[in-house]
Amino acid sequence: MIHSVFWLIPAASLFALLFAWIFFKNMMTNSEGTPTMIEIAQHVREGALAYLTRQYKVVGQVFVVLVVLLGILAYLGVQNPFVPVAFLTGGFFSGLAGFLGMRTATYASARTAHGASASLNKGLKIAFRSGAVMGLVVVGFGLLDISIWYMILNKLVYTATNMHEGLSWIGLTFVHAGTTEHEKLIEITATMLTFGMGASTQALFARVGGGIYTKAADVGADLVGKVEAGIPEDDPRNPATIADNVGDNVGDVAGMGADLYESYCGSILATAALGAALPGLTGEDQTKAVIAPMLVAAIGILLSVAGIFLVRTKESATQKNLLNALLLGTGGSSFFILVVLGFMVYFDWISWGIFGAVVSGLLAGVIIGQGTEYFTSDEYKPTKGIAKQGLQGPATTIIEGMAVGMYSTWIPVITIVIGIIAAYGFGGGFHSFADGVYGIGFAAVGMLSTLGITLATDAFGPIADNAGGNAEMAELPPEVRQRTDALDMLGNTTAATGKGFAIGSAALTAMALLAAYMEEIRLWLGKLAGDGVREVGNVLFYNDHMPMVTAGQRAVEIATANIQDFADAYNLTLFNPLLLGGIFIGAMMAFVFSAMTMKAVGRSAGAMVDEVRRQFREIPGIMERKQKPDYARCVEISTRGAQREMILPSLLAIIVPVAVGILLGVAGVVGLLVGGLTTGFTLAVMLNNAGGAWDNAKKFIEKGEYGGKGSEAHKAGVVGDTVGDPFKDTSGPSLNILIKLMTMASIVMAGVTVAYHIL
Amino acid sequence: MIHSVFWLIPAASLFALLFAWIFFKNMMTNSEGTPTMIEIAQHVREGALAYLTRQYKVVGQVFVVLVVLLGILAYLGVQNPFVPVAFLTGGFFSGLAGFLGMRTATYASARTAHGASASLNKGLKIAFRSGAVMGLVVVGFGLLDISIWYMILNKLVYTATNMHEGLSWIGLTFVHAGTTEHEKLIEITATMLTFGMGASTQALFARVGGGIYTKAADVGADLVGKVEAGIPEDDPRNPATIADNVGDNVGDVAGMGADLYESYCGSILATAALGAALPGLTGEDQTKAVIAPMLVAAIGILLSVAGIFLVRTKESATQKNLLNALLLGTGGSSFFILVVLGFMVYFDWISWGIFGAVVSGLLAGVIIGQGTEYFTSDEYKPTKGIAKQGLQGPATTIIEGMAVGMYSTWIPVITIVIGIIAAYGFGGGFHSFADGVYGIGFAAVGMLSTLGITLATDAFGPIADNAGGNAEMAELPPEVRQRTDALDMLGNTTAATGKGFAIGSAALTAMALLAAYMEEIRLWLGKLAGDGVREVGNVLFYNDHMPMVTAGQRAVEIATANIQDFADAYNLTLFNPLLLGGIFIGAMMAFVFSAMTMKAVGRSAGAMVDEVRRQFREIPGIMERKQKPDYARCVEISTRGAQREMILPSLLAIIVPVAVGILLGVAGVVGLLVGGLTTGFTLAVMLNNAGGAWDNAKKFIEKGEYGGKGSEAHKAGVVGDTVGDPFKDTSGPSLNILIKLMTMASIVMAGVTVAYHIL
Repeated sequence: MIHSVFWLIPAASLFALLFAWIFFKNMMTNSEGTPTMIEIAQHVREGALAYLTRQYKVVGQVFVVLVVLLGILAYLGVQNPFVPVAFLTGGFFSGLAGFLGMRTATYASARTAHGASASLNKGLKIAFRSGAVMGLVVVGFGLLDISIWYMILNKLVYTATNMHEGLSWIGLTFVHAGTTEHEKLIEITATMLTFGMGASTQALFARVGGGIYTKAADVGADLVGKVEAGIPEDDPRNPATIADNVGDNVGDVAGMGADLYESYCGSILATAALGAALPGLTGEDQTKAVIAPMLVAAIGILLSVAGIFLVRTKESATQKNLLNALLLGTGGSSFFILVVLGFMVYFDWISWGIFGAVVSGLLAGVIIGQGTEYFTSDEYKPTKGIAKQGLQGPATTIIEGMAVGMYSTWIPVITIVIGIIAAYGFGGGFHSFADGVYGIGFAAVGMLSTLGITLATDAFGPIADNAGGNAEMAELPPEVRQRTDALDMLGNTTAATGKGFAIGSAALTAMALLAAYMEEIRLWLGKLAGDGVREVGNVLFYNDHMPMVTAGQRAVEIATANIQDFADAYNLTLFNPLLLGGIFIGAMMAFVFSAMTMKAVGRSAGAMVDEVRRQFREIPGIMERKQKPDYARCVEISTRGAQREMILPSLLAIIVPVAVGILLGVAGVVGLLVGGLTTGFTLAVMLNNAGGAWDNAKKFIEKGEYGGKGSEAHKAGVVGDTVGDPFKDTSGPSLNILIKLMTMASIVMAGVTVAYHIL
Repeated sequence: MIHSVFWLIPAASLFALLFAWIFFKNMMTNSEGTPTMIEIAQHVREGALAYLTRQYKVVGQVFVVLVVLLGILAYLGVQNPFVPVAFLTGGFFSGLAGFLGMRTATYASARTAHGASASLNKGLKIAFRSGAVMGLVVVGFGLLDISIWYMILNKLVYTATNMHEGLSWIGLTFVHAGTTEHEKLIEITATMLTFGMGASTQALFARVGGGIYTKAADVGADLVGKVEAGIPEDDPRNPATIADNVGDNVGDVAGMGADLYESYCGSILATAALGAALPGLTGEDQTKAVIAPMLVAAIGILLSVAGIFLVRTKESATQKNLLNALLLGTGGSSFFILVVLGFMVYFDWISWGIFGAVVSGLLAGVIIGQGTEYFTSDEYKPTKGIAKQGLQGPATTIIEGMAVGMYSTWIPVITIVIGIIAAYGFGGGFHSFADGVYGIGFAAVGMLSTLGITLATDAFGPIADNAGGNAEMAELPPEVRQRTDALDMLGNTTAATGKGFAIGSAALTAMALLAAYMEEIRLWLGKLAGDGVREVGNVLFYNDHMPMVTAGQRAVEIATANIQDFADAYNLTLFNPLLLGGIFIGAMMAFVFSAMTMKAVGRSAGAMVDEVRRQFREIPGIMERKQKPDYARCVEISTRGAQREMILPSLLAIIVPVAVGILLGVAGVVGLLVGGLTTGFTLAVMLNNAGGAWDNAKKFIEKGEYGGKGSEAHKAGVVGDTVGDPFKDTSGPSLNILIKLMTMASIVMAGVTVAYHIL
């Protein structure tokens, strides 16, 4: 029975990929419009491709280094030998999804603009279904990767019963004739868990690099083009305008996609590992607990596709109509998922408690999104207040925006706290810890189950934005631009809620990964210090002179205890100064990482400003539209800046957890992850919301309030918007990655930490 | 022996007060200078007095409410009956110290300016010794309050052996014929600990109110006077200039003093309580462990006074000479304290481990101060980098400053982590938890032992600043202004390191208080749920229908366990979602509290801007110096703004810990405090350093770099400075209070939390 249900999972992932392909093909049948439109789209496409090629080259080198490193660790016995390979597949599929999604977006923008020439609905449909390609390749490849690995490992481990000697070299030292089904599942899921590290690493570079790229181009284009030269946004005379449009694609499509790919895989894998570790289950029930999160994801895919078809609008649509059209899609998917989950409870796949946990996750996502909307939309007091401060100049605009950003943290934090406690309680955590964290895992899986369609609404934004840019540069008639503007505004709203969704899901995923980290430590304790040590043993650890026995015995004791006693054994209380120190360092990491990404934008934007000024100076015909600016040079500068600047913060996020593990031990690592999670989450919300609010405050002034365009208030608003750019599009989103990646890196390096401290 | 040594403690505190009086009297013998100087000083003095009177009125009302509340709780048996009275004395002495220190400062500024007319050394001496009055009244009253309470309680508890029935109503239910000396000491120190709440509450209003006042006036004066009207700083034509000078006194003298008064008392009291709880000590040794921190403080006072006399300079002094003069004072005091501590080890009052802990604390203070200096002084790269960004306008200046502030957190965080772990380790924490936290307490006591002189260097700053303002307004000859400028610049440097010192000591104090909180919980468990419950019993708790027995038995078990088992019993591990939720809320509190104080400055500054503009418009003779502006009106506006705006954030800091205690229990409170401490510390450093760096970047440009005064870069620098004002002088310093006060409030409300969750 389980066996046949399992096939639904790879089937659903192929279904997602099939529809992605259909949507892509359908989109391609539309015309790209006038020759100018084609040419502009071509520029953007080439720029985006050039950037992505370079990024993958850099990432490729990092991957080679890491794979070699992981290989050495595997050889030394402190790393699972599957990990180097799994690491690669995780990174490969994430990169592939990003590549396909972004290519689609760059093909779609001119077609959206041209579609909008015919009707608003046509424009919406092209843009949205192109965004859906991104959503579907992410969930499709994610779940495919998970299900293939599950099948491979399952095969290997189940066969291993009769060949455990031969398999011991690949790390499956738990598997021998006496190994129970339960132990096998723990081994399989723990191994799978570590391959999320590939997705995490890829996401890091995509988010950080993409974030730096997009804002370097944007800030550069705005500062010289809009402020100094006084030409409008997306004006073809601005040399940085193509780079700016490329930036939307690499930052908001590829970067966002990689971020959520990581959350998606991470939450499913962590929950499966927590399911395998659930005590008290026997036989098929244990397997069900492992497969259940994958199954929820598979169902989510099917209903996401259904939801995508619900999105349509009439011609005279207001912003509210458009928003409702999208809400019908995402809300509809969510609702039907709950119905199907009800059936899963009925068929005893999950409990009502887990159902409650999923509801907690879904609700938390909605509330965080709405809170973001309140604090960043110009329909409400906070953003209007910022605009008003523009009357007194840039300084008070900045102070007010900072205050709004800081204040806005209360809704997401209270929501996530209630969400975590509720999911834990629904899961049964107040009776059994393991059940509780399994519940938290499901809250994350639930929140991300509709990712296929939510990511479509996210990716829709930059496509609409680019369509607007294309229409502006190709100087299409006003009614077309009005339509693309309507779509663009809709995209801004979904971008704000999408950011809330991304950080919320990152927090829940990190929570689940944190619990899974402890399982991983327990596993390695057993492997390295238990009987297994002589089997795994090699030059490094097979050392009779060291006090192996006592430490080893203690480790076995810990490894076989329940996770609560285990936490006590490691002194994971707040009275352990190593753990407290870890929390401090985690809080600091969030700030330092943000500082680095922010400075990176500053430096790259500075280079861009110099270049744009140079072109205006040295190519005198630009302003009279007699000569074309050198777009490619600006694309090149942004690309190079992003490549160079993303290395250091990225390495920091990987190295610090390992260093803390060695210096402060497991307690220090747990502290680091919790500190990074709590402060990182709060800081990310602050940065996102302050940035979003400044952006919309400026737009509010541009609508004619407080003197409108060109007034002193507007100048102040532009300063606020410029400050907010790296806040909301670079540093804030990069923190999503930091909190997940630090946990992932800790999980993958668990063996090293344990070995270092036992031996 | 112990008895006679103890008398050194009240004696040292009276010694401090005596010298404060002498310094004050000596300062008053100097002339205030010309009639104009006297008049200006009189304005500032009146403004400061008016503000303080109002503040104490508001604080008085809050105190009345809290005392009644604490009285009711005491009557109900969930509060120690001494607390309402102790609360009042803590608040009273803190307020008195602030009042005297600030009065002295306002008498000293014109005298400093006049002294500077004679010689630089004379100016330095007047300003520094007047600052020393603040330093000495703070440590004098602080230690006096502590020693008097210790004597009273000691008397009561020791007599109580024969009269325990009669004393049970005042909460000393632990004391009966069989009570050991050890138990008595625990009771005494725990009771004393709670009176720090009075000092905390007073500090909250002084820091928050003072911070709002000073920046409302400063921002208002700068925005209209300097930017719009183009008149220099401290120009007598600016209506807000007196308010600005008053602000320096109420914010940087009274506010800073109250902040450090709280840290000073808190660290000594917490360490005494941890000393009383040390297991394994007997007889006199236990008493020594309690008295030792007070003794270190007493020795610190004597050596601080000695250090004050070391501060002098020659006439042709450079900034480096001046700084060295101050360093000789503080460094000399620190050095001699270490020598005396060596003797204390020799006479077996403390161990070499504790000596090491004190060194850790002192060193941490120095390193954090130096780190602050690096990131905020215009002699180093970070601040120069911000100034350079001014060339590209205000937006990049803000981004760069934010990045510098965020990045600068690494030094203080790593230092505090190493300091905490080192102090814990030196104290013996890796063998015994109680010894370790006692060590951390001593790190805080050690850091604060030289407060008498370090606070003198802090309070020196605003006095010198006011002297400069006075000289400017009274239009004294250029060479005098040059001297006051030199003193002012010196004050800016000490202000930066002083801020680092304040937040560093706040963090260590909060750590010690956190450990003491657990002792307090343990004590209340014993009182409320043990045998004592029927004795304390009253309407609220004497309820036979509730499941008292099991809960009570469990509580007794926990109360008698060692603190580590106790932590386990409360599930203070990071796997408890209630505790994790607490950490999230703590992180959020730091941001929301900062947002509130920042918005408060924005609103008050807005009112000030309107008023200054109105005066320029309606009193046309101001600019031609024919008519005097209405200074009093601006003072009034700042005062009213500060009063109104400080209430809400202040209440939040008191109410949230109580609410979390009721909703999430002890684990939630511990999480809240740790989250607030770690994020609050990091955020405070970020805000302080970003603000300081912007300030000095602006001054760097004013020296003639990047176009100098009036250039575009300078305008950008002014925007940065204005944004930084509330960062560094309101929100950042207010966080010091938040992290301590939340812990204090939790300690005082421990009885309520325990009662609510047991019964």
